[in-house]
Amino acid sequence: MPELLAQPLLEVAGVFVGAMSGALAAVRKQFDIFGILVLAWAAGLGGGVLRDVLIGAVPPVGISDLRLMAAALAGGLVMYFGHPRLERARRVINVLDAGALALFTVVGTLKGLEYGTTALAAVVVGVLTGVGGGMLRDLLTGEVPVVLHHRQLYAVPALLGSVAVVALWHVEWAGGLGLGAVAAGVFVLRVAALRFRLNAPGPWRGSGSGGAG
Amino acid sequence: MPELLAQPLLEVAGVFVGAMSGALAAVRKQFDIFGILVLAWAAGLGGGVLRDVLIGAVPPVGISDLRLMAAALAGGLVMYFGHPRLERARRVINVLDAGALALFTVVGTLKGLEYGTTALAAVVVGVLTGVGGGMLRDLLTGEVPVVLHHRQLYAVPALLGSVAVVALWHVEWAGGLGLGAVAAGVFVLRVAALRFRLNAPGPWRGSGSGGAG
Amino acid sequence: MPELLAQPLLEVAGVFVGAMSGALAAVRKQFDIFGILVLAWAAGLGGGVLRDVLIGAVPPVGISDLRLMAAALAGGLVMYFGHPRLERARRVINVLDAGALALFTVVGTLKGLEYGTTALAAVVVGVLTGVGGGMLRDLLTGEVPVVLHHRQLYAVPALLGSVAVVALWHVEWAGGLGLGAVAAGVFVLRVAALRFRLNAPGPWRGSGSGGAG
Repeated sequence: MPELLAQPLLEVAGVFVGAMSGALAAVRKQFDIFGILVLAWAAGLGGGVLRDVLIGAVPPVGISDLRLMAAALAGGLVMYFGHPRLERARRVINVLDAGALALFTVVGTLKGLEYGTTALAAVVVGVLTGVGGGMLRDLLTGEVPVVLHHRQLYAVPALLGSVAVVALWHVEWAGGLGLGAVAAGVFVLRVAALRFRLNAPGPWRGSGSGGAG
Repeated sequence: MPELLAQPLLEVAGVFVGAMSGALAAVRKQFDIFGILVLAWAAGLGGGVLRDVLIGAVPPVGISDLRLMAAALAGGLVMYFGHPRLERARRVINVLDAGALALFTVVGTLKGLEYGTTALAAVVVGVLTGVGGGMLRDLLTGEVPVVLHHRQLYAVPALLGSVAVVALWHVEWAGGLGLGAVAAGVFVLRVAALRFRLNAPGPWRGSGSGGAG
Repeated sequence: MPELLAQPLLEVAGVFVGAMSGALAAVRKQFDIFGILVLAWAAGLGGGVLRDVLIGAVPPVGISDLRLMAAALAGGLVMYFGHPRLERARRVINVLDAGALALFTVVGTLKGLEYGTTALAAVVVGVLTGVGGGMLRDLLTGEVPVVLHHRQLYAVPALLGSVAVVALWHVEWAGGLGLGAVAAGVFVLRVAALRFRLNAPGPWRGSGSGGAG
C-alpha cells in the first residue's frame, strides 16, 4: 500500500483511541492499573490479534510491533490519568472511535486479501479487525459485547466497507484514493448512526406476537 | 474420506442446526440482526474455527468456505424470522442438534488426525468441534457454557465418539461404515440422555459434608 | 534448555497446581464432572495454549502432550474428590500457585524467544503463559478475570520476571542459574504480595474527584 502514506500514522491513532475506550471500561469496573492497561491493549489491538491468528500471521502485530503497542499503552495511560475529565468528552471519543472503525476495517480487509484468503474470509477478518477489539473489551469486563445488541449501526458500516474493499481489490482499484473513499464512507455512516440514531432491527416479531422489546 | 459421500451435505445440515441454536439464544437476549447472525455463525461454525486455529488449518473453513457460511447464515435467518414458532419446536431442535454433535465430533477428530496431531490432540479437537460452537454461543450471550454445568450427557458422547474414531483410524478401519457407526452411536447416546435424563455427576461430596447442591 | 534439568518436572507440577485452582472454581459453581475437568485443563494449560497459538506453535502442547494433559487431569481429579478438605488448604495452594506463576512465566518467555519473536512479544506471551490459565478459568466460570481487578500483585511479578528473562537471553546468560534466579524472584515477590498485601493501584483519582473506591 505505498499509496496510503498516511496509513501508519492513522493506524497508530486508531489504536490509541481504541485503547482509550478499553481503559475507560476498565476504570469504570475499578480494575487495577494492570487490568486497565490490559483492557487498553485488548480494545486497541485485540481485533487485529484475532485477525492475525485467523489468517496465520503469527505472532500478531498486536503483540510484536513496538509502535502499535506503544500507542495502546499511551491510550491506556492517558485514560488512566485523564478519566475524570475524559468521561465527559464521550462525544469526541465516539467520533474518534468511528475513525478507528473505518481505518481498521480497511486495513484488516486488505491484510486478509494480502494473505491470500477468500473474498469471504477477507470480509470476516476485516469486520473483525474493526469490531473485535470492542468485543474483547466487553467480554473481559464481564459484559455482553455491545456491538451484538446495541442496535445503533456499528458493524454494518464496517461490513459494507469491507465488501467495498474486496470489490475494489478485485477490479484492481485498491489504491489510496479508492481505499480512502471507502474509509470515509464507513466513517460518515457510523457518525450518521450516532447523530441520527440509525438502528439495526432487533428480533423479528410475527404478526400475532405483539408485545414489548 | 471418499467413502463418506454424504458428509458434505451432513456437515452443512449440522452447521444449519447449530446456527439456529445460536440465533435463538441471541433472539432471547434481544440482540439486533447483526448480533443474531454473529451468534448463528459462532454456534454453527465456532467449534470448527477453534479446531482449525489449534491445528494450524488457517484460515479456518468457518470463515472461508462459502457453503458452510451460507448454511450458518441460512440457519440464522430461519430462526430470525421463525422464532415465534420455532421456540415451541425445541424438542425437534434438540434431536437435530444431537445429529450435529455426532457429525461434528467425527469430522473434527478426522481433521485433527489428517493434520498429523497426536491421538490425544485429535480427541481434544474432535470434542471441541462438537461442543465449541455452543460454548462460544454461551460466552457471547453472557452465560456460563451450559455444556460445563448442565450435567445431562452432552460432551461425554462426543468424547466417547472421538476416542472411537481415533481407535478406528489406528486400525485403519476409518471408512464410511465405521465412521457412520460411531456417529450413530454418539447420536443415540445423546438422544438417550435427552429422553432418559442421563446425567454426569456434579461435585463429589465427602461422606461427612452432607448438604444441598 | 539443557541446563534446566528440573524443568519438565516443575512444569508438570505447575500444571497440576493450576488445574487444581480451575477445578476448585468449577466445583464452587456446581459444574458437572466434565466441566470440572475442562476447567482443570483450562486453568492448568490454557495460558500455554494461548501462547502457542500466538507464536504459531500448533498444535499447542496443552492439547497434544500426554504428560502435561495427565498432570491437568490429575490436578482436576484430586480437587474433584478432595475439595471438601482442600478448600481449607487455600493458603498452601496459593503458595504452590506462586511457584506455577514463576515457572510458567520463565518457560513461556523462553518459548517465545525460541520461536523468534520480538523481545516485546516474548514478554507478552511470557506473562500470558503465567496469567492466561487463570483468566480462562474466570471467563469460563462467568467471572471477570481476577488478575485484572484484584490489585494484589500477580501479573506484575510475572511482567518483571519476563523482562528479566529477555534481558538474560540478550546477554546470553539464559542458563539454568540465571533463569532459576528469575523464577525465584517472581515466586518471592508473589508470595510477598500475598503475605504483605502488596497492591497495584486502582483507577487514578484527580485532586478534585474524591469519593470511594
